[in-house]
Amino acid sequence: VYAKIDHDRSSRNGFPEVIYCEDKTPTQVSEIFYNLTLKNDRVLATRATNKCYNQVIKYVPQAKFNELSKTIVYQNDSYNTETRHKNYGKIVIVSAGTSDQAVAEEAYETATIMGAPVDRIYDAGVAGIHRLLHYTDKLSKASCIIVVAGMEGALASVVGGLVKVPVIACPTSVGYGANFNGVSALLTMLNSCASGVSVVNINNGFGAGYQGALISQLKNGGEEGND
Amino acid sequence: VYAKIDHDRSSRNGFPEVIYCEDKTPTQVSEIFYNLTLKNDRVLATRATNKCYNQVIKYVPQAKFNELSKTIVYQNDSYNTETRHKNYGKIVIVSAGTSDQAVAEEAYETATIMGAPVDRIYDAGVAGIHRLLHYTDKLSKASCIIVVAGMEGALASVVGGLVKVPVIACPTSVGYGANFNGVSALLTMLNSCASGVSVVNINNGFGAGYQGALISQLKNGGEEGND
Amino acid sequence: VYAKIDHDRSSRNGFPEVIYCEDKTPTQVSEIFYNLTLKNDRVLATRATNKCYNQVIKYVPQAKFNELSKTIVYQNDSYNTETRHKNYGKIVIVSAGTSDQAVAEEAYETATIMGAPVDRIYDAGVAGIHRLLHYTDKLSKASCIIVVAGMEGALASVVGGLVKVPVIACPTSVGYGANFNGVSALLTMLNSCASGVSVVNINNGFGAGYQGALISQLKNGGEEGND
Amino acid sequence: VYAKIDHDRSSRNGFPEVIYCEDKTPTQVSEIFYNLTLKNDRVLATRATNKCYNQVIKYVPQAKFNELSKTIVYQNDSYNTETRHKNYGKIVIVSAGTSDQAVAEEAYETATIMGAPVDRIYDAGVAGIHRLLHYTDKLSKASCIIVVAGMEGALASVVGGLVKVPVIACPTSVGYGANFNGVSALLTMLNSCASGVSVVNINNGFGAGYQGALISQLKNGGEEGND
Amino acid sequence: VYAKIDHDRSSRNGFPEVIYCEDKTPTQVSEIFYNLTLKNDRVLATRATNKCYNQVIKYVPQAKFNELSKTIVYQNDSYNTETRHKNYGKIVIVSAGTSDQAVAEEAYETATIMGAPVDRIYDAGVAGIHRLLHYTDKLSKASCIIVVAGMEGALASVVGGLVKVPVIACPTSVGYGANFNGVSALLTMLNSCASGVSVVNINNGFGAGYQGALISQLKNGGEEGND
Amino acid sequence: VYAKIDHDRSSRNGFPEVIYCEDKTPTQVSEIFYNLTLKNDRVLATRATNKCYNQVIKYVPQAKFNELSKTIVYQNDSYNTETRHKNYGKIVIVSAGTSDQAVAEEAYETATIMGAPVDRIYDAGVAGIHRLLHYTDKLSKASCIIVVAGMEGALASVVGGLVKVPVIACPTSVGYGANFNGVSALLTMLNSCASGVSVVNINNGFGAGYQGALISQLKNGGEEGND
Amino acid sequence: VYAKIDHDRSSRNGFPEVIYCEDKTPTQVSEIFYNLTLKNDRVLATRATNKCYNQVIKYVPQAKFNELSKTIVYQNDSYNTETRHKNYGKIVIVSAGTSDQAVAEEAYETATIMGAPVDRIYDAGVAGIHRLLHYTDKLSKASCIIVVAGMEGALASVVGGLVKVPVIACPTSVGYGANFNGVSALLTMLNSCASGVSVVNINNGFGAGYQGALISQLKNGGEEGND
Amino acid sequence: VYAKIDHDRSSRNGFPEVIYCEDKTPTQVSEIFYNLTLKNDRVLATRATNKCYNQVIKYVPQAKFNELSKTIVYQNDSYNTETRHKNYGKIVIVSAGTSDQAVAEEAYETATIMGAPVDRIYDAGVAGIHRLLHYTDKLSKASCIIVVAGMEGALASVVGGLVKVPVIACPTSVGYGANFNGVSALLTMLNSCASGVSVVNINNGFGAGYQGALISQLKNGGEEGND
Ligand SMILES: Nc1ncnc2c1ncn2[C@@H]1O[C@H](COP(=O)(O)O)[C@@H](O)[C@H]1O
Ligand SMILES: Nc1ncnc2c1ncn2[C@@H]1O[C@H](COP(=O)(O)O)[C@@H](O)[C@H]1O
Ligand SMILES: Nc1ncnc2c1ncn2[C@@H]1O[C@H](COP(=O)(O)O)[C@@H](O)[C@H]1O
Ligand SMILES: Nc1ncnc2c1ncn2[C@@H]1O[C@H](COP(=O)(O)O)[C@@H](O)[C@H]1O
Ligand SMILES: [Mg+2]
Ligand SMILES: [Mg+2]
Ligand SMILES: [Mg+2]
Ligand SMILES: [Mg+2]
Ligand SMILES: [Mg+2]
Ligand SMILES: [Mg+2]
Ligand SMILES: [Mg+2]
Ligand SMILES: [Mg+2]
Repeated sequence: VYAKIDHDRSSRNGFPEVIYCEDKTPTQVSEIFYNLTLKNDRVLATRATNKCYNQVIKYVPQAKFNELSKTIVYQNDSYNTETRHKNYGKIVIVSAGTSDQAVAEEAYETATIMGAPVDRIYDAGVAGIHRLLHYTDKLSKASCIIVVAGMEGALASVVGGLVKVPVIACPTSVGYGANFNGVSALLTMLNSCASGVSVVNINNGFGAGYQGALISQLKNGGEEGND
Repeated sequence: VYAKIDHDRSSRNGFPEVIYCEDKTPTQVSEIFYNLTLKNDRVLATRATNKCYNQVIKYVPQAKFNELSKTIVYQNDSYNTETRHKNYGKIVIVSAGTSDQAVAEEAYETATIMGAPVDRIYDAGVAGIHRLLHYTDKLSKASCIIVVAGMEGALASVVGGLVKVPVIACPTSVGYGANFNGVSALLTMLNSCASGVSVVNINNGFGAGYQGALISQLKNGGEEGND
Repeated sequence: VYAKIDHDRSSRNGFPEVIYCEDKTPTQVSEIFYNLTLKNDRVLATRATNKCYNQVIKYVPQAKFNELSKTIVYQNDSYNTETRHKNYGKIVIVSAGTSDQAVAEEAYETATIMGAPVDRIYDAGVAGIHRLLHYTDKLSKASCIIVVAGMEGALASVVGGLVKVPVIACPTSVGYGANFNGVSALLTMLNSCASGVSVVNINNGFGAGYQGALISQLKNGGEEGND
Repeated sequence: VYAKIDHDRSSRNGFPEVIYCEDKTPTQVSEIFYNLTLKNDRVLATRATNKCYNQVIKYVPQAKFNELSKTIVYQNDSYNTETRHKNYGKIVIVSAGTSDQAVAEEAYETATIMGAPVDRIYDAGVAGIHRLLHYTDKLSKASCIIVVAGMEGALASVVGGLVKVPVIACPTSVGYGANFNGVSALLTMLNSCASGVSVVNINNGFGAGYQGALISQLKNGGEEGND
Repeated sequence: VYAKIDHDRSSRNGFPEVIYCEDKTPTQVSEIFYNLTLKNDRVLATRATNKCYNQVIKYVPQAKFNELSKTIVYQNDSYNTETRHKNYGKIVIVSAGTSDQAVAEEAYETATIMGAPVDRIYDAGVAGIHRLLHYTDKLSKASCIIVVAGMEGALASVVGGLVKVPVIACPTSVGYGANFNGVSALLTMLNSCASGVSVVNINNGFGAGYQGALISQLKNGGEEGND
Repeated sequence: VYAKIDHDRSSRNGFPEVIYCEDKTPTQVSEIFYNLTLKNDRVLATRATNKCYNQVIKYVPQAKFNELSKTIVYQNDSYNTETRHKNYGKIVIVSAGTSDQAVAEEAYETATIMGAPVDRIYDAGVAGIHRLLHYTDKLSKASCIIVVAGMEGALASVVGGLVKVPVIACPTSVGYGANFNGVSALLTMLNSCASGVSVVNINNGFGAGYQGALISQLKNGGEEGND
Repeated sequence: VYAKIDHDRSSRNGFPEVIYCEDKTPTQVSEIFYNLTLKNDRVLATRATNKCYNQVIKYVPQAKFNELSKTIVYQNDSYNTETRHKNYGKIVIVSAGTSDQAVAEEAYETATIMGAPVDRIYDAGVAGIHRLLHYTDKLSKASCIIVVAGMEGALASVVGGLVKVPVIACPTSVGYGANFNGVSALLTMLNSCASGVSVVNINNGFGAGYQGALISQLKNGGEEGND
Repeated sequence: VYAKIDHDRSSRNGFPEVIYCEDKTPTQVSEIFYNLTLKNDRVLATRATNKCYNQVIKYVPQAKFNELSKTIVYQNDSYNTETRHKNYGKIVIVSAGTSDQAVAEEAYETATIMGAPVDRIYDAGVAGIHRLLHYTDKLSKASCIIVVAGMEGALASVVGGLVKVPVIACPTSVGYGANFNGVSALLTMLNSCASGVSVVNINNGFGAGYQGALISQLKNGGEEGND
């Protein structure tokens, strides 16, 4: 059969297996989704289409779809958001332009379902840097910052230079020509002259949100830490 | 003049400006080093040569050199390691092969001078995976894990699949041919099928150690957090 | 005319010319397919569409289509599967994720029509490495292992580190961003720190299956060997 | 013979042929240099070595060498700096780090010998952005700004977002790993989200200084304009 | 919300924020467009579709669409073209082939709305170099020249060798195979053996036109200069 | 300490850990080498220098050095070559040009110490194809063929088209310019139009010899097979 | 206007301007086509669509379309094929696989309209090298050989090693994965170990046919030579 | 043994095997050189060092060394240059800059020893295009033109647009930064908008000279043609 669901993942990694829908049929996605709900209080699927979602809600009617981020999330009634938030520091997601929004939202949905409280500052790119500096206060209260930027991705370095917490940089493929589908922003972020910046794959909002949640949960020695 | 030392960096970023020696003369390095000691209790220089070091100790006799990692560190007497350690969770550095040691040591020196307690597991690559699994316990007690690997860099994915804390992956240029000076390991780490892995530049042990310290310090809500 | 069928290939290479359908019209494919059946007991076509198949069965009604692997196979009545299997050691195909299935199936169909007995272990990627270790026994009984993996392709190194038989690694284009359509997995496999791993082209399930069959047939000094 | 000196270049392009010393012998350089002094009031050679210079001064004793920028310049007595300056707006050169100094100096020497008044702001990278903002005033008085930066090259976008004059961005090869000898900074600058940024080759301080002088000279409708 | 319009940009950069339509919905584009008309006498949107335009004219009936360049421009009645032109030197846009026209027109529309008088010389590539030389006179009267070329992009070097004003080179993706979507022309332009050539991104007609206008406006010490 | 010798490797993989000397000191190499001799009847070190070897023979006087292939081999007295050879089919190594000899020899030394009988056909590139065809007979008696070729690497396809046994293709970095240090030959081999060709890393003679031995040993159901 | 037809090209280059239809509208193509017929006895358009052709024949009814090669050719009544052929040596076009046919036909149409007699040998790739060797005689009578091959492109080296006339190698984008749309074959051909091989762009059948005709026309000191 | 000299090459390809010295020892080179003189009236070795040459003249005292082109040539007394020249049209080699001279000379030596009369026009790059146009007459009398250029390589297109004979374009690695060791010039030449340009490898003066001689010999139906 096509899938060996990793039911042990939640206890090993602190969060159940996440479904990457890209090369799966709606039937495969919905079957895996349903199966995961049987043993976990939360389920996340990324890169989902409307068609996927329509199949999923036949099995799991409480599942919710965010069309912008292409994510499907489910959490059962026993899951308590407020309690969760106590275990996490605040995450701030900063994005450079309007066109980076879809990736930023994927990060938002991921970090949120993992339990972290998240603030969003969108369209604050360095071409008009006062837009970012206006939020210096909010940035300084975060336990972890996620920067989502395409084109040249300079935003990560500027944010990194302003704060004393880890920055997770997520390049996007927004741009054209010598942008090479996000390679430009990726290289910028890997070579950042600011310290405390680590990087996830191009358009990998999920990875950024996941890493952000792992980091900010440590803040309070949260019960999901390794020890 | 050639340098505008960023004396504000410690208060803004939680650690003083770090000296990247690569394209600087020994004189430039030692002048900057000395200047930084005047306003900071710790100083770090990376990619230093013996020649650099010999110049630095003329100004700052307490400075120490690690020939393997090419780092020079200084900390004044008021700096208390034990107190520091209380503010940080444990970092574990895992490296794949004997040849990755220099980069791993750069990460070690960086995280240590920043104040974090660090454990090292070297030469535990996936070609003999039992060597890694033997340390499952130690890994599970870390607040953050740094993986240093060259060749194909598969170690980051395997470690990422075993733990519930952030993994900082640092590719090295160890290898040849289609390794392309570390590009192979870099791409592996960026595309990791395990979640919770973010990546720094090739051979950037400094960046990995820095990010590791920022992350593990949050563990205890350390006074150097953003808020 | 557009094709010079290489009717000598079966006696020279041990298997008749395989039809690569990608840039051929359904008419061309079916004409070549039919011609090959006249002089060979088995025929294989890869990268075939439904349209191709519909044309082929008009000429060769016994031809079978596997929609997932996009292969058309034919074997005539004189061809005896059981006898064949005696000449081959067992091949095991391991794939990393559900999305790698199409490529894995192309390998499966190829090795099978060539005469080898094949076992499949799908969705056993390194993010949950226990899924693979569970099959250590089956792996240890193989005469050759084919590893099919996308994203970072780390599975090939881990399998290579566990066995004493040749591993044929087939990277897939599953992934996005810095995966560069399979380049990430390709480089991983070429740089594997485990020994005994050789590599075929990205998504080349056909090539992996073919090489696997050539290797495992030698096991029994099979009559199709070079000597 | 090895060279056809383009004696028409000064009248056609406004400045005599510049000698690129990289693949020339000291003898070739000095012969060309001397020949150019016969028909021009200024001569510039780039990428020169000490050895080159020692040969040149045998023919042209007034020639001056800048060891940092590797440039040799000559101007005869009839050449009047003050008059020149009246024909040019002010150029400001901003560099990101201490290590970018050599390239920045090549730009400085080039623009200066062409006749433009030049101000330099060095080591003002975005990791400590206040260092740049401190010079907002000086920047706002320029007729053209040259930005020299390695690593991720984010400085060009930040400067571009602050001013209303052309920015010439010059990437340097300072950095390592995924910097790919300056490609990272080059792509950053080509994809700048700020408008009014055009780019020259990696480490091409000469090109940046030359373009800067052409631009700033127009400021006053200088006699060397095209019309 | 998805956008923080940078209303300060006109006073800071001399021209209001330009709308990049590529990843925005028609609704987003028209809302931003309308908002910008409230505080600026001119508005420019690039990479617009017909659908975008149809939405925009519902809010801003005077907006004009150039289907070839995919630009929407608006200028209110108070804006006086003739006065503007007095502040700018003439820009000449030279393009290599018929297929480069769309990018050349984007440059034309951009420089025009910014206020510069622009001449166009299209289809004057180096395969028939007399076509270019025929315009030597027109070229020599420009204050700035924009060269738009695909394939190998050699036109930029040839033009650069003929004039004494800044050349802004804009590579296009016209071509195939080893053209790599414009990389060939981009590299040509970055490595130009002629001096006074700086480069913008592949297909970035907007960037070329913008930089051209910034440069040519200085010509007359125009009131929009930095000082 | 710097190394965790994988003493289990021989029983797991059929051959003891191989020492990659590239980034190790002579002391490290000799210590590891000596340690391996204590538990294994054979030891192999690759990429060794003369200096390394001189250190090794102090500990292990029977160790032999091949200066061309840069390999050090050791086998103790209990190791019987003739018995070994009975467990392996013949390997034939074909190389394209004189300059590929060093890599071909690394493959030869590796396969030989593993126990396989090996024939060598050197300097038989496709520019004079009769040189290869002259050996058709020898090729047809092999159980596995290793092809070592630089420049364009076409030899692998031609050999692959002539035989019915697995071909292991090893690209070398011999060549210049668009050879890109072996990338040209690597791509050729990965895209071979002949079937039954799998590929190892550029200059990885070790990997080719290792895989060749694993394959040819199966030939006789040798005791070192997986089952 | 969009085009400056280079009416001088026939006298300068020996053949009228060829229309590259890729980015032109059917109207543009047909207008240029018609215009060229007024001053030339032959016209060629490449990369044409059916739509283009339908528009062209409205203006030039004698124009002929080859759907496979996507070329439109026209020759007027005064043009005498037989006389032409006397001025040219024979060209032989060899292609590797059925899928390379479209590019090979573009070369055929181009060389033919230029006046050369052309023979075609299709589907003679190196996987079954006897297919090529069968034509040794025909090859040895050519004055110039054009080799069209995709995948790994090894055919060019093999042909180059067999003959004493110039080989023009044309890589195609046939293949997948590490073929990188023809880059693999391109590099193979540029690095050919056989001498007397020069290369045109990927899929540039036109360029290969054109160069082939220029070369073979010299054979008879044809009146169209440079002198 | 290390070499199988292809003594048949002269009769098959019209010229004896050429020795590529790059990865050969002086002893190997001199042995092969001497052997070739026994059966051929001419011998050529490329990429030779002084050390190589000193060894060669011990065996073959008449051998001549060109230190610039790094070639060793030998021709015996029976070889008659004047007779040769009658079989060849004139070749013209045009180079762009002084720094391209070494590669141009390799082409010169190769074409000359093959028998062709060669003219050289050096340092005629497009930055001062009148230098080239001055030689229009000489160019128009050639039977084949070789263009050697580094940096952006635009010279090939300009020459191609001026003549009606084949142009062989040879890119050099002269330049820096985004030149990528000659890739920039290579791509330029492959994408040339002028027809009749085919390309050899970066710095492959040998290949250009060889192809040039093959082409120009056809001019007079020379006895060395294929038929
Ligand atoms: N020439 C070689 N090329 C690639 N891998 C090698 C080579 N020689 C040894 N190895 C492998 O490289 C690994 C060495 O890692 P380490 O010695 O710990 O840095 C071992 O697993 C060896 O099997
Ligand atoms: N400068 C050169 N560039 C490319 N190929 C060359 C050059 N000089 C000689 N050759 C060819 O390189 C091959 C030498 O291969 P080998 O000497 O056996 O390693 C011969 O076929 C020559 O024709
Ligand atoms: N999926 C595949 N991938 C790579 N090569 C293939 C595949 N299927 C068939 N081939 C080979 O591709 C060649 C087809 O060339 P042609 O059909 O003449 O264009 C044959 O030699 C086949 O052995
Ligand atoms: N540092 C430099 N970078 C790029 N081009 C330069 C540099 N210095 C001089 N040049 C140009 O390089 C060309 C020199 O070519 P050549 O000296 O003939 O090889 C001249 O046109 C100069 O204008
Ligand atoms: Mg915005
Ligand atoms: Mg080890
Ligand atoms: Mg799975
Ligand atoms: Mg600094
Ligand atoms: Mg045209
Ligand atoms: Mg040879
Ligand atoms: Mg075929
Ligand atoms: Mg010159």
